[in-house]
Amino acid sequence: MKTQVAIIGAGPSGLLLGQLLSKQGIDNVIIERASGDYVLGRIRAGVLEQGMMDLLREAGVSERMEQKGEIHTGVELAFNNKRVHIDLATLTGGDTVMVYGQTEVTRDLMQARSEAGLTTFYESSNVALHEVKSQSPYVTFEQGGQMRRLECDYIAGCDGFHGVSRQTIPESVRTEYERVYPFGWLGLLADTPPVNHELIYCKTDRGFALASMRSATRSRYYLQVPLTDKAENWSDDDFWQELKRRLPDEVASRLVTGPSIEKSIAPLRSFVCEPMQYGQLFLVGDAAHIVPPTGAKGLNLAASDVATLYKVLTRVYQEGDQECVSQYSEICLRRVWNGERFSWWMTNMMHDFGDVSVNGADSATFEKFMSSELNFYTDTEEGRRIIAMQYVGLPYEPLSVG
Amino acid sequence: MKTQVAIIGAGPSGLLLGQLLSKQGIDNVIIERASGDYVLGRIRAGVLEQGMMDLLREAGVSERMEQKGEIHTGVELAFNNKRVHIDLATLTGGDTVMVYGQTEVTRDLMQARSEAGLTTFYESSNVALHEVKSQSPYVTFEQGGQMRRLECDYIAGCDGFHGVSRQTIPESVRTEYERVYPFGWLGLLADTPPVNHELIYCKTDRGFALASMRSATRSRYYLQVPLTDKAENWSDDDFWQELKRRLPDEVASRLVTGPSIEKSIAPLRSFVCEPMQYGQLFLVGDAAHIVPPTGAKGLNLAASDVATLYKVLTRVYQEGDQECVSQYSEICLRRVWNGERFSWWMTNMMHDFGDVSVNGADSATFEKFMSSELNFYTDTEEGRRIIAMQYVGLPYEPLSVG
Repeated sequence: MKTQVAIIGAGPSGLLLGQLLSKQGIDNVIIERASGDYVLGRIRAGVLEQGMMDLLREAGVSERMEQKGEIHTGVELAFNNKRVHIDLATLTGGDTVMVYGQTEVTRDLMQARSEAGLTTFYESSNVALHEVKSQSPYVTFEQGGQMRRLECDYIAGCDGFHGVSRQTIPESVRTEYERVYPFGWLGLLADTPPVNHELIYCKTDRGFALASMRSATRSRYYLQVPLTDKAENWSDDDFWQELKRRLPDEVASRLVTGPSIEKSIAPLRSFVCEPMQYGQLFLVGDAAHIVPPTGAKGLNLAASDVATLYKVLTRVYQEGDQECVSQYSEICLRRVWNGERFSWWMTNMMHDFGDVSVNGADSATFEKFMSSELNFYTDTEEGRRIIAMQYVGLPYEPLSVG
Repeated sequence: MKTQVAIIGAGPSGLLLGQLLSKQGIDNVIIERASGDYVLGRIRAGVLEQGMMDLLREAGVSERMEQKGEIHTGVELAFNNKRVHIDLATLTGGDTVMVYGQTEVTRDLMQARSEAGLTTFYESSNVALHEVKSQSPYVTFEQGGQMRRLECDYIAGCDGFHGVSRQTIPESVRTEYERVYPFGWLGLLADTPPVNHELIYCKTDRGFALASMRSATRSRYYLQVPLTDKAENWSDDDFWQELKRRLPDEVASRLVTGPSIEKSIAPLRSFVCEPMQYGQLFLVGDAAHIVPPTGAKGLNLAASDVATLYKVLTRVYQEGDQECVSQYSEICLRRVWNGERFSWWMTNMMHDFGDVSVNGADSATFEKFMSSELNFYTDTEEGRRIIAMQYVGLPYEPLSVG
């Protein structure tokens, strides 16, 4: 079997890359470890930056998003009995974000790929990448009881944090940067109307909470919890009770509760692998970097990697420019580190770090710095603009002219 | 002996407060542990915010500053082979800073106090504050071999970090927040023309350096050094060599060296004591808070405390409003924490933390966050504005209307 670009992983990054490349006539095959239903069952992010919306439009998969997605022109930060509205559109000169679940994006992309008759091998096991430093890399995997071999020009590693792609880069070549936070997020999904028309990020003495949503009838809420907590120890009732305590009073009073569809705890982690390329292999999205969800950057950083790789490969195949290939990692990493920094900053400002020493300062001193930070960046228009321009997403970086 | 306001400490805070109060007809006496010459011999800060300039004008001690001080409309950040100009005036709508040494400010204030015939007890030992929770506090001290007692309405503790004033507040009442940094600054003063017409803050692989000045003929330079270093182990020649390595090449090439007038190492510390008042005692400046010098906020935060206490006491004596007294600590602390945060942020961004874990992240990850921070806040006009508005100093907060 032979293709131009082998894509490892059929999550939103792999599917979006495949769709974009196909539109440019670049042949690609996706290899995915799980089943399509499993991929669709994963509950993930739900806030798309302007750049990602535009990319989905360019890929021709935006129809349902335009109908069902909700444009948000602002978000709210609540803390210390204050509610501060960050008017994204006004502060950035018109940029907004779109609330549209990652699950929906994935579904749209799967459907488009299926309609275009493009090849995806689901339920592939023992995926391995070979000869990635040569001009003739190939991928082997087992599928339907059969050992398969896919020859290709390039490999896009879109297989997430635990995938095989990053592990294929020798440890001597890659540097990994990491910060693991001393808490997790307990998330609950419910078919109830969202408590607020915009997202509310809440910092409280009881810990952080986020009121989010996937649509006008589906709510997504989160609570900061100790890493030792288990989702099964939280009844729905416990969750709603605790959420009410962390929401601003006037918001809590209109909270509509209901049975959870999903409830799970995710740890919070900042992680970056450098470089993001090795020979003919490119790492995309979670395979190279993880952000804590505060700031809604995970999926969006994956999308900007896809945009960069798409531009690189288009130039390679349409203009025969091999030079631009070497730019991939550097271009991605500049934007990745901005997103990492913003997510880390929002996480630091909004969470309760308990008694854990942070920033070389004891937790009480760190909390004082963070309170001042939150006040300064919300009290001043200049500060709110800094939050807004990063929340809607910094511009995608162009390739250098070859 | 009796006065209205007993001021402990004849540094710039105590002298400025005394001068301002006297202009409003409020009687005050200053008690200082050291001699006048010793106070004048201390080499300290040299960058005055707009608010402090205005306060010196209001105190009637600005004549020499207007003549000899230099208005700076910008500062420079150098890192990673880049030089970024922060145009303070343009970014803030006209605000600037004044380069005029703390020693000069102190000299002007001493002279004004002496000319006004106001009482200062220099070389006072065994200073003790008594009955500060009562309406009749008093201060005892030994001076000229004689035990003295000064009765007063209020006590202003302007006696610095190691002074007796903060220690007078019972430990059960005060909370102290602290961050000690894993490095110090080696400073050198020389009668050489400054290498640049504006300050340059330099982040390098060899550590931080600052090119500053006191006048057109007097330079002040700093090098980040390990806490274990001693000033006497650095020859002038060692200092100049190392400074050249840390300055941008085109700047280093025009460095004029010469014999040092002073050379010393200061540790870097963030410190805040809350509250800043207890009964009739008010803490002012370093007695309540210390910042690392990155950002030039130490003297300026002391000045804004002075401005607040001056407004409080003027209202007390001229309008009989006792209510406003209780606002002092809260009003000061809001601005103090902003200055603390800015100084901490600049320190984090510009220094090399070596292998010390910071912010719960290993040093390499923290350095990546800080590099991204420095790029983001210097690459964007919105970011440069955030630096500028804090560097020139946030507005002084008014008293609430009684």
